[in-house]
Amino acid sequence: MATAAEKEGVVLLDFWVSAFGQRCRIALAEKGVGYEYKEENILSDKSPLLLKMNPVHKKIPVLIHHGKPICESLIIVQYIDEVWSHNPLLPSNPYERAKARFWADFVDKKVAECGTRLWKLKGEAQGEAKKDMIEILKLLEGELGDKKYFGGETFGFVDVALAPFTAWFYTYETCGKFSIEKECPKLAAWAKRCKERETVSKSVHDPHKVHEYVRKLQKKYGVE
Amino acid sequence: MATAAEKEGVVLLDFWVSAFGQRCRIALAEKGVGYEYKEENILSDKSPLLLKMNPVHKKIPVLIHHGKPICESLIIVQYIDEVWSHNPLLPSNPYERAKARFWADFVDKKVAECGTRLWKLKGEAQGEAKKDMIEILKLLEGELGDKKYFGGETFGFVDVALAPFTAWFYTYETCGKFSIEKECPKLAAWAKRCKERETVSKSVHDPHKVHEYVRKLQKKYGVE
Repeated sequence: MATAAEKEGVVLLDFWVSAFGQRCRIALAEKGVGYEYKEENILSDKSPLLLKMNPVHKKIPVLIHHGKPICESLIIVQYIDEVWSHNPLLPSNPYERAKARFWADFVDKKVAECGTRLWKLKGEAQGEAKKDMIEILKLLEGELGDKKYFGGETFGFVDVALAPFTAWFYTYETCGKFSIEKECPKLAAWAKRCKERETVSKSVHDPHKVHEYVRKLQKKYGVE
Repeated sequence: MATAAEKEGVVLLDFWVSAFGQRCRIALAEKGVGYEYKEENILSDKSPLLLKMNPVHKKIPVLIHHGKPICESLIIVQYIDEVWSHNPLLPSNPYERAKARFWADFVDKKVAECGTRLWKLKGEAQGEAKKDMIEILKLLEGELGDKKYFGGETFGFVDVALAPFTAWFYTYETCGKFSIEKECPKLAAWAKRCKERETVSKSVHDPHKVHEYVRKLQKKYGVE
């Protein structure tokens, strides 16, 4: 049975360091929507609530609204954008919307996967991941160009999709031994602008705390 | 330089057997949009037009509308649904839209990947793929339930996403040695209903032709 809070309000099942969960936190903050945050211990036991709300993937984040679950971070962000339609994240023009969805999907498919290879692998395979990550970030920088945000003058859908990964940039740089500022100065400046935004800064964690978490994972997987 | 036809009309860069490309063909047919079809030889040389229109992924399908490219099949289908808004594919209610996006994304992440394992692998790994495929199809059958279509009474977004894979069902059954009709009778009945729909039947290919193509791939990869 869902509790009264779950039925009536907005609940987010999340895990503190998840970039996917942080997207939902940023989107909710951009819309000024209050919600109940429930931390899931995804490394050990998943809660009965998570298993009930996302029986297919059994993953965070899950947004529960009026007792009904919405899963998969980019789908959640679009749901938030449709239900609370002020301060729109997606542009209104269909072509611009398709472009925003394309780049958010690009982040989804490329950044996290390559980031994991960067901290989980060693030697040649890690070198490959570094090369790939620089290429990925350069493609993103190319799309950003001289704009303030991926959304232009306003912080939009692609910004929400990518901003949480800025807290992982330090980890990527440390593992791959490269400088994002040197390789992609415009993207680095964009990351700083994001961090100055309260909706982002209160939703993501200190890059050193993220790195400390990754070092624990590296020990667990025997990388170090 | 884009040709006049590309600039003014609708062009689809596609590959005949691609389930992802067929999604776009079905969506365009559902909307009654005429377009120029350009077959890409994705197994050998990619055309300069494809490389120009999708420089990031270099993949079909690409929809070119007024000379501007839209990539990634589900993003293309949403674009088509937004530009030609009659006979809507996505529901209007945000929660129902999120649910439709979730299941289309599920098809994207699970069906093709598992299908490839089914025809590309042997022995125990293939057995695992068979088990996974039956589980995937049962989850889809659970979502379909007693509805006519995933979209309810009307053929919708999830139907467009999954319908092209029905032409691959025979291949999955032959490789995995199982019967979809026996495992998932409601899903098999849905597949028949889709096939009777002109927008689907003219967009997808004969299951035996698909299987013949897969057998060629199996020879190429030394599976047989």
